[in-house]
Amino acid sequence: MYHHVKKLMYTVRVDTPDPAFGNMLLEQFGGANGELAAAMQYSIQGLNCEDPERKDLLMDIGTEELSHLEIVGALARLQLKPLKFDRDAAEQDPLIAIAGGGGVGLFNSQGNPWTADYLKITGELDVDLRSNIAAEARAKIVYERLINHTDDPGSVDALQFLMTREITHMKAFSAALESMEKPPFSIGRLAATPKLVDEYFNASTGDGDEGDTDMHGPWQTSFGLQPVESPMVGGQGLSNGAIDGVAGYEARGKQDSAQKATTATKVQTVDKKPIPKNENAAQKGRQSTMEGEPVISTK
Amino acid sequence: MYHHVKKLMYTVRVDTPDPAFGNMLLEQFGGANGELAAAMQYSIQGLNCEDPERKDLLMDIGTEELSHLEIVGALARLQLKPLKFDRDAAEQDPLIAIAGGGGVGLFNSQGNPWTADYLKITGELDVDLRSNIAAEARAKIVYERLINHTDDPGSVDALQFLMTREITHMKAFSAALESMEKPPFSIGRLAATPKLVDEYFNASTGDGDEGDTDMHGPWQTSFGLQPVESPMVGGQGLSNGAIDGVAGYEARGKQDSAQKATTATKVQTVDKKPIPKNENAAQKGRQSTMEGEPVISTK
Amino acid sequence: MYHHVKKLMYTVRVDTPDPAFGNMLLEQFGGANGELAAAMQYSIQGLNCEDPERKDLLMDIGTEELSHLEIVGALARLQLKPLKFDRDAAEQDPLIAIAGGGGVGLFNSQGNPWTADYLKITGELDVDLRSNIAAEARAKIVYERLINHTDDPGSVDALQFLMTREITHMKAFSAALESMEKPPFSIGRLAATPKLVDEYFNASTGDGDEGDTDMHGPWQTSFGLQPVESPMVGGQGLSNGAIDGVAGYEARGKQDSAQKATTATKVQTVDKKPIPKNENAAQKGRQSTMEGEPVISTK
Amino acid sequence: MYHHVKKLMYTVRVDTPDPAFGNMLLEQFGGANGELAAAMQYSIQGLNCEDPERKDLLMDIGTEELSHLEIVGALARLQLKPLKFDRDAAEQDPLIAIAGGGGVGLFNSQGNPWTADYLKITGELDVDLRSNIAAEARAKIVYERLINHTDDPGSVDALQFLMTREITHMKAFSAALESMEKPPFSIGRLAATPKLVDEYFNASTGDGDEGDTDMHGPWQTSFGLQPVESPMVGGQGLSNGAIDGVAGYEARGKQDSAQKATTATKVQTVDKKPIPKNENAAQKGRQSTMEGEPVISTK
Amino acid sequence: MYHHVKKLMYTVRVDTPDPAFGNMLLEQFGGANGELAAAMQYSIQGLNCEDPERKDLLMDIGTEELSHLEIVGALARLQLKPLKFDRDAAEQDPLIAIAGGGGVGLFNSQGNPWTADYLKITGELDVDLRSNIAAEARAKIVYERLINHTDDPGSVDALQFLMTREITHMKAFSAALESMEKPPFSIGRLAATPKLVDEYFNASTGDGDEGDTDMHGPWQTSFGLQPVESPMVGGQGLSNGAIDGVAGYEARGKQDSAQKATTATKVQTVDKKPIPKNENAAQKGRQSTMEGEPVISTK
Amino acid sequence: MYHHVKKLMYTVRVDTPDPAFGNMLLEQFGGANGELAAAMQYSIQGLNCEDPERKDLLMDIGTEELSHLEIVGALARLQLKPLKFDRDAAEQDPLIAIAGGGGVGLFNSQGNPWTADYLKITGELDVDLRSNIAAEARAKIVYERLINHTDDPGSVDALQFLMTREITHMKAFSAALESMEKPPFSIGRLAATPKLVDEYFNASTGDGDEGDTDMHGPWQTSFGLQPVESPMVGGQGLSNGAIDGVAGYEARGKQDSAQKATTATKVQTVDKKPIPKNENAAQKGRQSTMEGEPVISTK
Repeated sequence: MYHHVKKLMYTVRVDTPDPAFGNMLLEQFGGANGELAAAMQYSIQGLNCEDPERKDLLMDIGTEELSHLEIVGALARLQLKPLKFDRDAAEQDPLIAIAGGGGVGLFNSQGNPWTADYLKITGELDVDLRSNIAAEARAKIVYERLINHTDDPGSVDALQFLMTREITHMKAFSAALESMEKPPFSIGRLAATPKLVDEYFNASTGDGDEGDTDMHGPWQTSFGLQPVESPMVGGQGLSNGAIDGVAGYEARGKQDSAQKATTATKVQTVDKKPIPKNENAAQKGRQSTMEGEPVISTK
Repeated sequence: MYHHVKKLMYTVRVDTPDPAFGNMLLEQFGGANGELAAAMQYSIQGLNCEDPERKDLLMDIGTEELSHLEIVGALARLQLKPLKFDRDAAEQDPLIAIAGGGGVGLFNSQGNPWTADYLKITGELDVDLRSNIAAEARAKIVYERLINHTDDPGSVDALQFLMTREITHMKAFSAALESMEKPPFSIGRLAATPKLVDEYFNASTGDGDEGDTDMHGPWQTSFGLQPVESPMVGGQGLSNGAIDGVAGYEARGKQDSAQKATTATKVQTVDKKPIPKNENAAQKGRQSTMEGEPVISTK
Repeated sequence: MYHHVKKLMYTVRVDTPDPAFGNMLLEQFGGANGELAAAMQYSIQGLNCEDPERKDLLMDIGTEELSHLEIVGALARLQLKPLKFDRDAAEQDPLIAIAGGGGVGLFNSQGNPWTADYLKITGELDVDLRSNIAAEARAKIVYERLINHTDDPGSVDALQFLMTREITHMKAFSAALESMEKPPFSIGRLAATPKLVDEYFNASTGDGDEGDTDMHGPWQTSFGLQPVESPMVGGQGLSNGAIDGVAGYEARGKQDSAQKATTATKVQTVDKKPIPKNENAAQKGRQSTMEGEPVISTK
Repeated sequence: MYHHVKKLMYTVRVDTPDPAFGNMLLEQFGGANGELAAAMQYSIQGLNCEDPERKDLLMDIGTEELSHLEIVGALARLQLKPLKFDRDAAEQDPLIAIAGGGGVGLFNSQGNPWTADYLKITGELDVDLRSNIAAEARAKIVYERLINHTDDPGSVDALQFLMTREITHMKAFSAALESMEKPPFSIGRLAATPKLVDEYFNASTGDGDEGDTDMHGPWQTSFGLQPVESPMVGGQGLSNGAIDGVAGYEARGKQDSAQKATTATKVQTVDKKPIPKNENAAQKGRQSTMEGEPVISTK
Repeated sequence: MYHHVKKLMYTVRVDTPDPAFGNMLLEQFGGANGELAAAMQYSIQGLNCEDPERKDLLMDIGTEELSHLEIVGALARLQLKPLKFDRDAAEQDPLIAIAGGGGVGLFNSQGNPWTADYLKITGELDVDLRSNIAAEARAKIVYERLINHTDDPGSVDALQFLMTREITHMKAFSAALESMEKPPFSIGRLAATPKLVDEYFNASTGDGDEGDTDMHGPWQTSFGLQPVESPMVGGQGLSNGAIDGVAGYEARGKQDSAQKATTATKVQTVDKKPIPKNENAAQKGRQSTMEGEPVISTK
Repeated sequence: MYHHVKKLMYTVRVDTPDPAFGNMLLEQFGGANGELAAAMQYSIQGLNCEDPERKDLLMDIGTEELSHLEIVGALARLQLKPLKFDRDAAEQDPLIAIAGGGGVGLFNSQGNPWTADYLKITGELDVDLRSNIAAEARAKIVYERLINHTDDPGSVDALQFLMTREITHMKAFSAALESMEKPPFSIGRLAATPKLVDEYFNASTGDGDEGDTDMHGPWQTSFGLQPVESPMVGGQGLSNGAIDGVAGYEARGKQDSAQKATTATKVQTVDKKPIPKNENAAQKGRQSTMEGEPVISTK
């Protein structure tokens, strides 16, 4: 259950409205990394969460983000207000001007409507916490860029407040992830296949002739990784033979077994059934209507 | 520049097509955490990246994900093939059956078209690496759930291959982030406001009466954090006074200064301009057309 | 500023989960007429509202809808929970099952992500109140249909609670509209053109030959309306001559004046400019690159 | 069956093209409250309508809106035509310029493609009429704002024509709703719960300290309503006990009964089933693959 | 399986960045007719294709388009780079500036995210080839328009390269279609109904009174076509009686048979079932809850 | 201007409603290749068309498609009607059942809302005609598949009618394209680069080892084409040197000139400007806030 107090969590002030900057601010109101996205992502994760401690964390931060949404909205509205009557301002964002009467709406800086496709919710708690840490990092850098594009003191202060809180939340989500004490690189319960999991595949190569050369870094050798060259440039390729889907499960479809689809034209394990429901129709002439009669050659 | 070799990175095999499961597989073909999303997120980050070492990493993994897209597509197509002629199968996914002729398309398991809104690309390298770590974790858990919903050996193997590679990539992105040697919780260049950044705000509370009670955990006290109660339940609230947007920048809009917008009705710092372009029109009668004459009371 | 109490506004109970019905419930969680749509529509109208009394109303109801969102989410989650592990249930909504781990997400009953395109926000208070009255009526009928499709007592009760509140809100928005004391059919400040405004245009006709016949009703004669037949069936058509855009504004583009675009091929008032920036290029051969050289005949 | 006559319902004229204004006009061509939205909303409601009289009304107005779509399109096209060759104009709307060759498309003023999500169609006639009344009010105010942003006489006239017709339609839809003679606030057939339906819930409060104070108005006391304070600020809350889903239906899930989900962590009515299809696999080691083993404590 | 070489297929050069033009270029990066759309359309058609020869063609061109995507992206990025720090540039595309840090993303020139709705994939090979021919023609004209809007030599060259390749692909797809040796206007296997198929229906007429007059052209008389006037203007209408769905299939629903839905209000062939699951409930009072009791009159 | 006659262009009949098939029919009501898409694509092309003859053609067919939309809608509605009250039917399409009350809406067979992204409109007449030919071919095959999935005689007949008309339109659009007498492969006015335009690039290769082998066909040698191997497999690659953007235009950025961006990391032609607006701020400490200080090495 929610309650609203008619006071902003951080009081905003704008000296001279700057509609183009107001438009940029919408990125944090109705944009992909904005406050509604944060509020919904954490609150719905919380609604689904069965761990009462971390559920509380998700609801705490999800609710705070709703209060941030209100702050960004109030700030953007002050910046965008001239759009209603001023033709030059209206051209900055005709959607807000003509359809919205100068008020804010759930759009991003280019007028795209907010969509739940922005959210990352899997119902797997440690995975969701990783998504949240990344989301806070993104929101932080977006606020920094907004600050870089304005000189209005009140706007800078409000954005500094909001930017600071993203770091606070990043700390809290990181602590919650650590407190779960999962081994590194352990996600869910199914184990990755040994050997194959440690092969760094070099799928992009270069010799510097008018392009880039191959580069090296710890990402090829850390955490047990080692580089593998592609068969497309003469390398050995990945250890596909190591795959054994589920330990102890006998009826395996191993990579060395006989019949396989490759690039999907030559092998056909699908039964060539007649069309089940239309048999009578077929006898009466409809068989001539079947498009794409299977022309598949069997290996 | 890309080259394609007409051989799958991992050869797939399906014994008995299972259209409903084929539909689920589309989640990793055209879905939010699927292989096209991964391929595009990393490759476009790579295209924008000015650090030649980590750009190479992004292109390596982005290209490998394209090869994975091909694997998932080949697997889903074998499972979905009966949709073209079999009416019962067609009801599993009428879009694939009727519009796609039984072939795969860039849709998720519920028929939503793939959208670039799934991608997280900020152009800030360490932030993007965090988004990628989270993306790999999400893809891993999705493959695990798919494995849990099939008993077809060939499908299990192919999914195990793909699931394993997500962990490989998670390791590589983590190593790349570590190799940047940034301090923890440091994003971009603007510093968070001290004191305020360490306040964990308890925005969701409960006393257990038919609901949950307040919970506690390390996320309230780690990394310098300490809990703060909301003024809505009698607490002190956040240290808004600590805000000072940019160090040394004098013309600050401090929280204790006089004129502020609060919940945005009472204070008005926007100049009440007449409508600039229509002055003549107004004299001729158009002034009666102005909607919403400002009725704002000044504090 | 928002606060969350860890107790549902209406406690929900589900005896036997019914995943297909849980899927239907998502219509009111992440669907077009659902609780998030209501919460956002009213709260953002409130954020933009400059009338402090009705702003309070909008925030009251907008906030209550957030609490309803939580109720519907909790109810749908109990119904959908089997999707995580049960293959048959998973086929009901593979998106929730595979990508969401059985938890609710901001999707409708067919898996479409919530979008701000569902919202109707114009920033014109009386218009927004009309949109809200219609929105509450839609939500009411949707809840009624949901009740008709379940026999689970706890679900019926929770839906009855939510359905009842829609009528409450419909009353409140209607009272707020009435309290503005605007004349009927008066929207904004620009007056409609007399005579033309009262012409009911009969654009769909029929004589009953294997189709429908023309019907009559008070909508052709109430509020000063009178029927007008289309020139396409030999009628007089609308009184276009009555148009005089803005009273007293002299330089009118009357319908009887000389040059007009009709169906837009014959008249050309656009200046045929040469392409401004490429003049030099044109001299050097680029003039041959101009597509679609205007072939417009002037009347 | 439709027929088209190659003459506009209202002949349009533009003296000097104004591409930025042409862009604004697209709001009524391919935008949320535009003519295609109106044409489709009413025509499809008509297609579904089983009341032959009001079906006729819906087809009359739906068809007229198609003619309006043609008018707005012709007007916008004249304003946008310079986009094809003039670089400065092209920057106003690069999508129209580069992809559309200067012609109109079904986009709004910010380039968003028209979507059926704009439509409100429930198949419940009186509800649909309310949605239509609100839709006409929105379209009216949008045309008024467009008139306020141009001084071109021909454009003002065409917009005045279109704006006037919205009021005509608002009258007709209002008359049709009245003619159904439904009691006020009666939607569908299921009755709202007495007492609960009359409680106005004060979910947003304030004491004026740097924010707004609580406001009062007839929306709290009209139509039988009376204000109720939230338990979150010490009030009594809503009369949840009044709920009795369907009169006479015995097996009620009353609010005072024993086991309930609250904020959904503590109570568990879902049977803890083993995963049905994978039992054998589980014995062979797959049991270790189950994510999120239920950790739910029962009250 | 894919491999990436770290060298562009065509090396790009930009002398002076032009952010507004960079924005236009995005049309071919993340737009409807852009390189990702081409790459995905052809590659996925290839993945589904069972004709190994033309599958190879689809993969050849699909892969080349991926290399083009990289070229357009590199070119747009150079043009857009100032957006990160330059406020004026940032206003050209705030989404790229604020959310993307000046890097390219999968958006079109108006910031819409790329969507799989752009793709045309039917799984019917000759149909897909027609879609591809049209797609190449569209891409060609878009590149031509881009060239017309820049004077930067390096950009013109790169665009000329890409534009040329579209013609190459148009040739290849046309040759592949011809090589299938299908009769003209033969799609799939079901034959069109003779006589009816040759009737050109004149659904838009005019007499020139302030509008256009009826026009004539070979499209009314070629390939066996002949013009037919609409019954709405006194013509004979189409030869509906010629319809006989499937040759030899007896139980036909001929147009002269008895019961038909016309404009769908008067005829009712749907059984009026009682609501199946709620019978008991109905006895206990729920019968009053049924909305829209069928009020259909039978002819 | 449009007129509607209350009689279907083809009277529909359904004997036994089949909700799952009704769902499939929605593909042609609100789907990507459906009747609204056709009606809008042709009508809007017509609205923009400056060739009065072919404009008439576009309006003729665009208007006929509106009449087809009405037919498909009436047919689908009869099939879907049980969704309103029958729980089993409702599960076939909960969106239609719960939100739409059993009536049709502008959704496809998987519930996705119709979007203008389905349309292909470029404003270049011959290109648009090619898009229309392809669109008709797609619609034809979709109707054929629908016929293959039903045995209801009335539905088969109505679909046969609609399918036949697609071939009619395909003939008319083909005749219109031919009548323009453009040379083959000539699009717009800018010429393709000789030599380069004739190079078929073999971007996908194979040697048959568990995959496909390279295939050959007339698409590599027709219309002047000849195959070229990729430098990635040791071939010569494309004739990039042939590029000379605009004939006779001297200030060329030839591929052999000095400074170029390659894969975009090593060369930098963008001026390294200081951030223009924030210079003072920088002196006061903000210089530390600049993210991503250019770290670009120059070749």
